[in-house]
Amino acid sequence: MSIKIGILGYGNLGRGVEQAVLHNSDMELVAVYSRRDPASVKTVTGVKVVSTEVLDEGKEDIDVLIICGGSATDLPQMTPKYAAMYNVIDSFDTHANIPVHFANVDSAAKASGKVGLISCGWDPGMFSLNRLYAESVLPGGKAYTFWGKGVSQGHSDAIRRIDGVKDARQYTVPVDAALEAVRSGKNPELTTREKHTRLCYVVAEDGADKARIEEEIKTMPNYFADYDTTVNFISEEEMKQNHSGLPHGGSVIYSGSTGDGSMKHVIEYKLTLDSNPEFTGSVLTAYARAVYRMNKDGQSGARTVFDVAPAQLSPLSGDDIRAHML
Amino acid sequence: MSIKIGILGYGNLGRGVEQAVLHNSDMELVAVYSRRDPASVKTVTGVKVVSTEVLDEGKEDIDVLIICGGSATDLPQMTPKYAAMYNVIDSFDTHANIPVHFANVDSAAKASGKVGLISCGWDPGMFSLNRLYAESVLPGGKAYTFWGKGVSQGHSDAIRRIDGVKDARQYTVPVDAALEAVRSGKNPELTTREKHTRLCYVVAEDGADKARIEEEIKTMPNYFADYDTTVNFISEEEMKQNHSGLPHGGSVIYSGSTGDGSMKHVIEYKLTLDSNPEFTGSVLTAYARAVYRMNKDGQSGARTVFDVAPAQLSPLSGDDIRAHML
Repeated sequence: MSIKIGILGYGNLGRGVEQAVLHNSDMELVAVYSRRDPASVKTVTGVKVVSTEVLDEGKEDIDVLIICGGSATDLPQMTPKYAAMYNVIDSFDTHANIPVHFANVDSAAKASGKVGLISCGWDPGMFSLNRLYAESVLPGGKAYTFWGKGVSQGHSDAIRRIDGVKDARQYTVPVDAALEAVRSGKNPELTTREKHTRLCYVVAEDGADKARIEEEIKTMPNYFADYDTTVNFISEEEMKQNHSGLPHGGSVIYSGSTGDGSMKHVIEYKLTLDSNPEFTGSVLTAYARAVYRMNKDGQSGARTVFDVAPAQLSPLSGDDIRAHML
Repeated sequence: MSIKIGILGYGNLGRGVEQAVLHNSDMELVAVYSRRDPASVKTVTGVKVVSTEVLDEGKEDIDVLIICGGSATDLPQMTPKYAAMYNVIDSFDTHANIPVHFANVDSAAKASGKVGLISCGWDPGMFSLNRLYAESVLPGGKAYTFWGKGVSQGHSDAIRRIDGVKDARQYTVPVDAALEAVRSGKNPELTTREKHTRLCYVVAEDGADKARIEEEIKTMPNYFADYDTTVNFISEEEMKQNHSGLPHGGSVIYSGSTGDGSMKHVIEYKLTLDSNPEFTGSVLTAYARAVYRMNKDGQSGARTVFDVAPAQLSPLSGDDIRAHML
């Protein structure tokens, strides 16, 4: 019997989950749920599109609903709302609001007897796991997280809002010297500027003042002002040809010691991803299996990746994973 | 209330656990248990040494016994034996015998109502986790495990058994070209010889035939014959000065894809360890916390790292780890 998956929201992440479900033979994609007119949404795999009005009745035959909305406004509403009806999983990544979001999902899911797993993906998600494993094994060490080289959609959008900008792509790039210092176990103190640079490709409108655009980017508070930023103006054709993908990745590097402190140990977890949304969708899909199993075991309430035993993620039996992966 | 830890066996690994317990303020080391005459064993931290005859009575006031014996003959006997009396954890690493060992520990621990966690450390252990996480997220990819640069005690011992050898140290060294091919996502097929080389430092006895020793090393079946091996003869002083540590490490590199296979993703988990036994001891100690908690929750039977939710490893509360590590 397959695990029945529903996808709520059909942007890049929703399409990533759609692809991931195909790679998991114990799962079946039931429907994509959309707030748009279903007739206007065409899925890659041809799976049916259903209005969220139908989903809201709480009677859809799905084991886990994978919620692919934005963290700013969608997920704080959606995840508790749907945890009251279905097992759910999301990729909520507004760090400061995780405790509140967890509490909201927890009370909704406890009341409904469902499981709601929040903040899943790679950061938060796989990177969080690696911070926790490393800190537990080597207490008192120092965790460094580097992102990139990869496209930041938030930063790309921020540039697009500048007057005279037709299109933009922003890459977050970790600084090699900082990476090397951390990998060597030196435990350096690093400023924001020392850890990452920002590389921007911009298509300007005809006749736009490029110097002014570059200045507006480089001085933009929060997004760019604290970084060394490079701005390259390119043609629309070049943008399409060289910058249409959504690669990303990064490293969690943990540096700790044992004994009297003289024995140093460095743990690095590194991701190099051709497609950020397809990888994130794959993580969500693996954890959907765990959500289904935990709920079947009688669990309810909010969970994070920290609460999931790794064996729950695999379609293989305990005997098989012990024989082949241990 | 502290978690009361006992250590069985006081070699390099036992001393590594002794150091690790000091770094975990919610734990207390009760005793080292030894088959040797307790009066003849001096511990680094001064913790008391108790005969295994006392341990065998089954009445020691310990929450978890960390068994630091060898996989060849000690652990297959010891872990089931003591799982009948105490919560236990071991680092059993004879891959082919894991299913049998698991079954033996499982029946003993179920009968006693205790938890027995086997095959913990970094490989098996942290590396196993990374193989499982990666395969679950990107089904159908390929996992590569590289070891080193690091000291292999088994290979060092094998050299020491050769006639005319006074001392020896063997380093396992991963081949850079193989590492790079795997990291690039090329999914190469690699022979044993292509993945690792073996680097040996040997102190020969006065007047020994070095050419014969070198030949015996390089042609030794299983240990060296399938590898490109380099043998360096050095003095006792040089051995002591440059090769007295037990560094190790390695990488699990997983290469998979999403969608139609055109999007490639590479996941790497890399360890660089100054002291193999101190790091392994630290992993065992973190998992001892989980064993204690699982048993307190009413669980019994055999477990592996695959069965342990990451949050169980941390002394911090769920709220704290969500707020600071997610």
